[in-house]
Amino acid sequence: MSVVVQTIERADRLVIQRLGAAGVATVHEALGRRGLMAANIRPIQQDVAIAGSAVTISAAPGDNWMLHVAIEQLREGDIMVLAPTVACDMGYFGDLLATSAMARGCRALVIDAGVRDTRDLREMGFAVWSTAVSAQGTVKETLGSVNVPVVCAGAAVNAGDIIVADDDGVCVVPRGEAVAVMEAAEARIASEEVRRKRFAAGELGLDIYDMRPRLADKGLRYV
Amino acid sequence: MSVVVQTIERADRLVIQRLGAAGVATVHEALGRRGLMAANIRPIQQDVAIAGSAVTISAAPGDNWMLHVAIEQLREGDIMVLAPTVACDMGYFGDLLATSAMARGCRALVIDAGVRDTRDLREMGFAVWSTAVSAQGTVKETLGSVNVPVVCAGAAVNAGDIIVADDDGVCVVPRGEAVAVMEAAEARIASEEVRRKRFAAGELGLDIYDMRPRLADKGLRYV
Amino acid sequence: MSVVVQTIERADRLVIQRLGAAGVATVHEALGRRGLMAANIRPIQQDVAIAGSAVTISAAPGDNWMLHVAIEQLREGDIMVLAPTVACDMGYFGDLLATSAMARGCRALVIDAGVRDTRDLREMGFAVWSTAVSAQGTVKETLGSVNVPVVCAGAAVNAGDIIVADDDGVCVVPRGEAVAVMEAAEARIASEEVRRKRFAAGELGLDIYDMRPRLADKGLRYV
Amino acid sequence: MSVVVQTIERADRLVIQRLGAAGVATVHEALGRRGLMAANIRPIQQDVAIAGSAVTISAAPGDNWMLHVAIEQLREGDIMVLAPTVACDMGYFGDLLATSAMARGCRALVIDAGVRDTRDLREMGFAVWSTAVSAQGTVKETLGSVNVPVVCAGAAVNAGDIIVADDDGVCVVPRGEAVAVMEAAEARIASEEVRRKRFAAGELGLDIYDMRPRLADKGLRYV
Amino acid sequence: MSVVVQTIERADRLVIQRLGAAGVATVHEALGRRGLMAANIRPIQQDVAIAGSAVTISAAPGDNWMLHVAIEQLREGDIMVLAPTVACDMGYFGDLLATSAMARGCRALVIDAGVRDTRDLREMGFAVWSTAVSAQGTVKETLGSVNVPVVCAGAAVNAGDIIVADDDGVCVVPRGEAVAVMEAAEARIASEEVRRKRFAAGELGLDIYDMRPRLADKGLRYV
Amino acid sequence: MSVVVQTIERADRLVIQRLGAAGVATVHEALGRRGLMAANIRPIQQDVAIAGSAVTISAAPGDNWMLHVAIEQLREGDIMVLAPTVACDMGYFGDLLATSAMARGCRALVIDAGVRDTRDLREMGFAVWSTAVSAQGTVKETLGSVNVPVVCAGAAVNAGDIIVADDDGVCVVPRGEAVAVMEAAEARIASEEVRRKRFAAGELGLDIYDMRPRLADKGLRYV
Repeated sequence: MSVVVQTIERADRLVIQRLGAAGVATVHEALGRRGLMAANIRPIQQDVAIAGSAVTISAAPGDNWMLHVAIEQLREGDIMVLAPTVACDMGYFGDLLATSAMARGCRALVIDAGVRDTRDLREMGFAVWSTAVSAQGTVKETLGSVNVPVVCAGAAVNAGDIIVADDDGVCVVPRGEAVAVMEAAEARIASEEVRRKRFAAGELGLDIYDMRPRLADKGLRYV
Repeated sequence: MSVVVQTIERADRLVIQRLGAAGVATVHEALGRRGLMAANIRPIQQDVAIAGSAVTISAAPGDNWMLHVAIEQLREGDIMVLAPTVACDMGYFGDLLATSAMARGCRALVIDAGVRDTRDLREMGFAVWSTAVSAQGTVKETLGSVNVPVVCAGAAVNAGDIIVADDDGVCVVPRGEAVAVMEAAEARIASEEVRRKRFAAGELGLDIYDMRPRLADKGLRYV
Repeated sequence: MSVVVQTIERADRLVIQRLGAAGVATVHEALGRRGLMAANIRPIQQDVAIAGSAVTISAAPGDNWMLHVAIEQLREGDIMVLAPTVACDMGYFGDLLATSAMARGCRALVIDAGVRDTRDLREMGFAVWSTAVSAQGTVKETLGSVNVPVVCAGAAVNAGDIIVADDDGVCVVPRGEAVAVMEAAEARIASEEVRRKRFAAGELGLDIYDMRPRLADKGLRYV
Repeated sequence: MSVVVQTIERADRLVIQRLGAAGVATVHEALGRRGLMAANIRPIQQDVAIAGSAVTISAAPGDNWMLHVAIEQLREGDIMVLAPTVACDMGYFGDLLATSAMARGCRALVIDAGVRDTRDLREMGFAVWSTAVSAQGTVKETLGSVNVPVVCAGAAVNAGDIIVADDDGVCVVPRGEAVAVMEAAEARIASEEVRRKRFAAGELGLDIYDMRPRLADKGLRYV
Repeated sequence: MSVVVQTIERADRLVIQRLGAAGVATVHEALGRRGLMAANIRPIQQDVAIAGSAVTISAAPGDNWMLHVAIEQLREGDIMVLAPTVACDMGYFGDLLATSAMARGCRALVIDAGVRDTRDLREMGFAVWSTAVSAQGTVKETLGSVNVPVVCAGAAVNAGDIIVADDDGVCVVPRGEAVAVMEAAEARIASEEVRRKRFAAGELGLDIYDMRPRLADKGLRYV
Repeated sequence: MSVVVQTIERADRLVIQRLGAAGVATVHEALGRRGLMAANIRPIQQDVAIAGSAVTISAAPGDNWMLHVAIEQLREGDIMVLAPTVACDMGYFGDLLATSAMARGCRALVIDAGVRDTRDLREMGFAVWSTAVSAQGTVKETLGSVNVPVVCAGAAVNAGDIIVADDDGVCVVPRGEAVAVMEAAEARIASEEVRRKRFAAGELGLDIYDMRPRLADKGLRYV
């Protein structure tokens, strides 16, 4: 039952780039508030935003063997997404594996588990979103799979889905919805830009969004 | 039962500023070790210290409607304190609301819930202490209240209380005790300054505080 | 039953330094994957690595009296390791105690509890690994012990053991194994250096470690 | 600043009893969804429901001295509510203190901390809602207060407020609202009884509450 | 984007029953150690084991509207599986909804959120596996979907998958694999029965599984 | 480095039995408040108290191989104590292993990890204190050790130490202190019995322990 799917479809590179530019909060809203990973998956670096195509890894708890298998499947711009089959905070990934992944054009890992060598990873410019930092070593004894559907930090991910990650967390955009989500996200940004100017000028959301009548209807009293 | 209290009393601006300069650890001690929020409320930025008057917000879980209502009540130097009526790690607040709050002179939020757009908030110089970072969007369906007593991260807060926040966490000073606490805090700082010099010169706490007799009385043995 | 052991043996200074240079992940592997503290003990600063001899402190929950006692026992290069007898996230340690410890040549604390004045500590160059940040003050009422065996964040520590700490966490090397672990760690680094070059050149772990036959034996299928 | 308030007002005994009969979920709804303690405060027994007047205790972390002071203030039907000034999972309370409390007519404790002797407490018929079970002993060194306002498990409690507790958790009813809340709760129960019969007969909430038009308006599609 | 899928395929009733009889641990092993929900989803009752076809519910955080919609889709023997789009410990479900669900032949709920009226639910014989118990009420404002794929407590669930739940937790069997998993589970039980007798007679796993040579090869030493 | 220590010393059976009768809270006090495991290790059954000699197991995360090795070392009345080298909530132990352990006279397991088949274990009368319940299966790939010193749930345990466990948790008594601790525990019980009668008769702790003068000295005010 352990398989490596070698051919996956990826979204258009420009679409991916524009989703990354939109950022997690906006993309998550444009997706109808779906696709967000749980809030305990956090970046090991600050002020880095990225997007890429998911190469998914289903791994046994405490076993990082499949990362070696997955790296062979990477293409320029991919992001690895590793989900253990059970919650595990051990350190699956460090600077050597990052060196290997970067040699194939991958610059980020999203992992529902731990990583180590975090200082080296920051210095190398390899970005990580993880649920733990831990030096605890893993074994290479049990098979898993690559590019099969996984659940990572509470979100379902298929190989080739677009991963958008920044300081706010990680969002998964199904590949088939990438263009529509990009367009909705950019429309949202444009309209936010208009509102930002009004907010900066001192206008209130109460007025910009015409909230006062509905608040009164619901019974809000000013005293 | 949903109300907006429009007139609140605030402490003297200089008193607030001096409490902020004293810092959370010192103010908490000066208060008799009361008023500290729980340790899971953490800053999204580093090395920022602030103090201000609390504008309190009681909000439904996952509903940020009352933030718009509260912003209208802000004055220069206020700090918003949002407490959901039940624990919730969704992202109530982001860069647009911060833009609006800053236009009214508010520069910080303390929230027993999540925020998003954290990179933008840091760049804008808007400080946040929160119990989560999450892009998860909220709705605007259920009323709450503004400037009523709330419990935020385990601490009771009344509108107009002084919020002191820095890297160590958040402390709440009841408005009526502000001057006394400020004086106790500054006295504590002065006496700490004397002791700091003695510590730096190599004197031991055992001698500075004359602890040796009491340690011996309690039965401590050196072997 | 409360004792202060005044004479402890320490490892050779150069050995300690070389363990520190090897870093937590490597030392932990060289130790046979033992000695790692739990993943919830985290640094309050970034990009600091250190090693030193443990001066251990067993303290009552919420009581930091023994820190004063322990500081008298410190020598240049020591690291204090404080373990409360029960989990506690109060702020046992701040800038005054750090001033005192630094005056005796100690530059780091590992504590299965909270610390405060974190900004000051970073500015002073005093490194801390803790399980919490909290301004909550402690009392001085109950005796504990210094330089007795403790369990800190899940790891057993004896006085004089070598503490290695960096961004990945904290590892404890039993004093008697220090030289052997140092040698194993440095051998590991040397062999990693060779592999790093091969990884950087694009070779795969699958080939470097000759994994393909074993993967096939276990039944991995490529599709 | 440590005080014991000896005279507190209590609600009418029958009102308290009827609030207890209504149960936590109903009372919480009748209160406008306020007053609920956090979900991590759990009963040590099953299938026990109770209500009583709060005798509040503000205690230092790991210090149970004030329980002895509070017991003297108890009257028949009171419930003790202990809130440490900082989160603490030590065992503040066991069978001896329960014996003393029961001798004064108290049959329950709500505590944002730990208890011990849980088997004995169940056998004695003394009910407890706590955030931990722990044998860890506490000291008697630091004063606290009795019958002052406290925050317990996230809820503000004043002495004399009505505590309603069952398998679902703990709810606090402000004394001044007790009669109104009781009436709203009982009205709610009556109307639920009617609906329960319709539900049991196979009618759907979609029809009982006439939800179908609003669902369609919002855009729900059946496929 | 909010839909109710009205027609779903279910597995054969006898297959479901036999999976339920096999139990969670055995079924999880028979599935190749996949499909297990996270360990924080726990039963509110003890010693109840059940299996059924999943009717899935994707709900907004703190909003239980879709439960009413889902109940109309239930058939005899179904189990509701509710996954909020973000972690939430509010009380989505109580005795009234259980009455309605039971009227349609449903006897269990699996929910990555909270429930209330737990004593009533136990008395009614309605089984629940939840990640929280909370009286906190929810609203009916935001649409979700019924019988779409969801992620519940870390496991992907499709409508019609077989849910197996007992004291050990909850396991999800994809509908298409139900027969094969049932057969593998029953084979496993048969072989365990043989081994159980040998264990009970005092034979050791070391001998039954012939582990001694491999332990020696790996280097285990007896001292 | 993986060893099985085959000969361990055990305390006298009657001493062990009397420690078990004293219970966890009393033994922990008699030990000077040492030896208690963390509060997150909980029984899977209710109202069971036990004591026995520790057979310790150091196991790799997610690997239960050493349990088979350990069972061969068991004698009548032993309790297995399993500590993974890193936190892990997988299900290491179920009914088959319990059958094997019971055949050798062992009736309890203390494990800083998960167990499964919990209903069966309760029915068999095999007692478990664990930090998780999980059906998640483990592998048999990596060696560990038996009867070496371990840290389990924060407490150091040596083979042959006495484990005392009941509803309040688990306490470890060093073998060499067993008789002294037993005597101190029984003295404590006797004096508690005297006080229990006084408490039951309505006397207050304030008077029994003569607390009033010291409370007044510290500044407690009655208002």
